[in-house]
Amino acid sequence: MALIVQKYGGTSVGTVERIEAVADKIVRFRDNGDDIVVVVSAMSGETNRLVAMAQSIMDYPTPREMDVLLSTGEQVTIALLSMALEKRGYGARSFTGGQVKILTCDTHTKARIREIDGSRIHAQLEQGNVVVVAGFQGIDENGNITTLGRGGSDTTAVALAAALEADECQIYTDVKGVYTTDPRVVEDARLLSSITFEEMLELASLGAKVLQIRSVEFAGKYKVPLRVLSSFEEGPGTLISLEGDTNMEDPAIAGIAFERDEAKLTIAGVPDVPGIAYKVLGPVSDAGIEVDVIVQNAAADGTNDITFTVKRGESERAKGILDKIQASVGAREVVLDKKIGKVSLVGVGMRSHAGIAAKMFKALFDENINIQLITTSEIKISVVIEEKYLELAVRTLHSAFELGDPDYEKESVE
Amino acid sequence: MALIVQKYGGTSVGTVERIEAVADKIVRFRDNGDDIVVVVSAMSGETNRLVAMAQSIMDYPTPREMDVLLSTGEQVTIALLSMALEKRGYGARSFTGGQVKILTCDTHTKARIREIDGSRIHAQLEQGNVVVVAGFQGIDENGNITTLGRGGSDTTAVALAAALEADECQIYTDVKGVYTTDPRVVEDARLLSSITFEEMLELASLGAKVLQIRSVEFAGKYKVPLRVLSSFEEGPGTLISLEGDTNMEDPAIAGIAFERDEAKLTIAGVPDVPGIAYKVLGPVSDAGIEVDVIVQNAAADGTNDITFTVKRGESERAKGILDKIQASVGAREVVLDKKIGKVSLVGVGMRSHAGIAAKMFKALFDENINIQLITTSEIKISVVIEEKYLELAVRTLHSAFELGDPDYEKESVE
Repeated sequence: MALIVQKYGGTSVGTVERIEAVADKIVRFRDNGDDIVVVVSAMSGETNRLVAMAQSIMDYPTPREMDVLLSTGEQVTIALLSMALEKRGYGARSFTGGQVKILTCDTHTKARIREIDGSRIHAQLEQGNVVVVAGFQGIDENGNITTLGRGGSDTTAVALAAALEADECQIYTDVKGVYTTDPRVVEDARLLSSITFEEMLELASLGAKVLQIRSVEFAGKYKVPLRVLSSFEEGPGTLISLEGDTNMEDPAIAGIAFERDEAKLTIAGVPDVPGIAYKVLGPVSDAGIEVDVIVQNAAADGTNDITFTVKRGESERAKGILDKIQASVGAREVVLDKKIGKVSLVGVGMRSHAGIAAKMFKALFDENINIQLITTSEIKISVVIEEKYLELAVRTLHSAFELGDPDYEKESVE
Repeated sequence: MALIVQKYGGTSVGTVERIEAVADKIVRFRDNGDDIVVVVSAMSGETNRLVAMAQSIMDYPTPREMDVLLSTGEQVTIALLSMALEKRGYGARSFTGGQVKILTCDTHTKARIREIDGSRIHAQLEQGNVVVVAGFQGIDENGNITTLGRGGSDTTAVALAAALEADECQIYTDVKGVYTTDPRVVEDARLLSSITFEEMLELASLGAKVLQIRSVEFAGKYKVPLRVLSSFEEGPGTLISLEGDTNMEDPAIAGIAFERDEAKLTIAGVPDVPGIAYKVLGPVSDAGIEVDVIVQNAAADGTNDITFTVKRGESERAKGILDKIQASVGAREVVLDKKIGKVSLVGVGMRSHAGIAAKMFKALFDENINIQLITTSEIKISVVIEEKYLELAVRTLHSAFELGDPDYEKESVE
C-alpha cells in the first residue's frame, strides 16, 4: 500500500476509449490498496485545436487569455477520466490546478510552480477517492489561471509527488521506459530497470526524449522516485532515482545517446589572446543561436582554432555571423561542416572507473572511425564524428560496453 | 456613461468570426464611455460535443464531473472574446464563474446562485477593462465547479447586473426583441419598445421563447432593467422593466401568445362532491404529466364536467389514466380532443380596463369562432378553440386590439 502519483500524457488519453483504458489501469492499483493521484494532459489534438482558434484572432494571443483557453484542455480530460472511474464503481474527484492551489509565478504560458497545498488532495484520498488533477496549469497569487509551458504535465506530477510525499511518481508514455540507446539503431538495446537523475538528464538533453528535462531536474531536487513506463503495454518501466541501477554487472555506463541534427563550425587561426572566445561566441549567442559543444585548442604558433556545434538548421546563419567578424578578430578562415554526428557515453559509474575513455576511443579506432572533437563531463564523454559513421559508432560502443539485452541475444541464437 | 451587463448566447459567439463581431459591438459601447461586463455562453455546438463524449462513457454521467466538463465551454469563449478585444486595443480580462465568486448551492447541473462578490469586477472596471465572465457556471462553498442548467447564462447576466447594480442588463439573441405576437402568424406584429416583467413572464410561458423564465423572474425580483435585442441587427430591442410601455395608445394589451401543441381532456358527469377534482387530477399529476388550463363547471343536475389541457404528446397517456379511474369516480365518459389551440391576451393594463374580455369574445364571435374554454388571471385571458381557427383568432385579436405596427400598414398602403 503506497501513495502513487501517475501521469498520463495526451496520447494516452487521446480518445474516450483510451481514457477508459487508463481507468482500467488505475483500478488495478486501487485494488492493490494503493492511494492514487492522477495527473492528465489534454486529449491529443485538443491543444492544437485551441491554439488554432486563438491564432485565427491574433498572431500572438494575449498570454493571460491563452492560459484561460488552453487550461480547458486538461479540464475536459479530468472530468471524463473521473466519470470513467465512477462508472467502474470507484470514487473519483477531479480538480483543476487552481482548485488544488498549485501556486505559480505570474509568467503566463511558462509559469513555474512555487507551492502546492496538498491538504485538499489528502482529504479526498482519506475518503477513498482517486484524485484526478489537471496537469500543466496552476494559478498565480491573484487567482489568475497560468500554464507551465511545454511538458508541464510531467512537472505537475513531480511537484504533486513532492508536495504529497508520494512513494513514487509514474510517468506513462508511449515507450516502455528508458533504453541503453535508441532501439531503432541498436536492435538489442536493453530497457534499463533503473537510472540516476543525472544520467537521465544527460540522456534526455542528448536526444533521448522520454521525459521533459525540467521534470527530471525537479524530481532530482526533491528526491522523488520517478518511473517511466508504457500506457499501452505492461511492464515495470525504468525507475529514475538517486541510486540508479545497483544490480548491473558493469555499472560504469548507463546508456549511449546520439545526435544527428548538428553542424560544426570552426573559426581558424585566431590570435591566442584573452577574450577571443567571447568575441567569437558572443555574437552567435546574441543572435539566439544555441551552441552545444565548444572546443578550443591553442596551437604552438600562437594562434587558435575555435570549434563549436549548433543545430544544423541554424548553421548557415551562424556561419554568416562568423564571416562578418572574421576580419575584425583576425581569423584565417571560417569552415562549416554539416555532415557530423555526436555520440555520448553516459553513466555515473564513469566517475570512479578509469579507462572508460580509452576503451571508447579504442573501440572507434578498431572500426576506423575518426574522432573530430572530444568533450567530457563528470558522467559523460561525447565525440563528434563524420555523420555517416554515426549508427556504426553507436552499435560498436553498445557492444564494446556490453550494454545489450542478454535475453535478446539468446532469442537470436536459438 | 452607464454600467451595462451584456449577454451573448451560443449562436452569437458560434464562430471566431462572430466573436470578432461581438467584440466590435462592445467596442462601440466602450467608445461611448460605458463600463461593460460581458457574459457569454459556450460556442454553439460545443456543449453538445462535450455531452456526447460524457455519454459515450456513462448514460448518466456523474453530475459533479459533468459540471467540470461543461464549464470548459464558456471558458473557451471568454478567452477568445478577451483576445478579440485586446486585438482592438481595448483592455479585457476574462473570468470563470469561480474566479468572480459566483457562489451557488451544491446541486450540480442545476445549481442556483446564492451570492456574487462584485469586488473583483469593480476593480477591473475601474482600471478601464472590459470584464468578460463565463455564463452558466459558479462554485459551491467548497470550491467545486457548478453549472446553472438550461438558460443559465441569462441568469448569470441578470444576477451580475443585480450584484453590480448595473444600469441595464442586455440579452443579445437571434431575434430583434419581443413582439406583440409571432410575426410568422401576423405580418404586422409590432416590436414592443417595452413590457413589464409580469407580461414577459406570461408571454414566455405561453410560448414566446425569447428569454428563459428564470432570468425574467430574477430580473423582476431584483428590479434589474432587462433589454432583449439582436446580436446580428441594429436596433433598441425591447426593454423589460417594472413600468412597461407607458407610451402606448392602448396600454391594456401587451401581446398575444398562443399554443398549438395542446390537447383537451374532459371527464364528464362526475358527482359534484368535495375532493372530486383531486381524485381526477391527482393521478395525472402523479404520472408526471403537466396540466395547463383546468376548468370545472357544476351542472344543475348535481354532476360535474372537469376539463383540462395537457401537452398533446402526453394526451393519450393522460386519457389512459382517466379511463382507469372513470368507474371509481362514477364518471359518465372520458373525452379526448387533440385538435385544440389556445390563445391568450396578456397585459398589465387589463387589471384596470373593463371590457377587455367582452371585446375579445365579440371579436371571435364576429369570425364565428366558438370558444370551448375560458380562463383568466390578473393580466391574462386565455381561450381554448378549435385548432384550425388558431391563426385566424390570433390575427383577428391582433387587429381588434390595434396591436399592429403602423409603419408596416403604411408600407402596405403605399
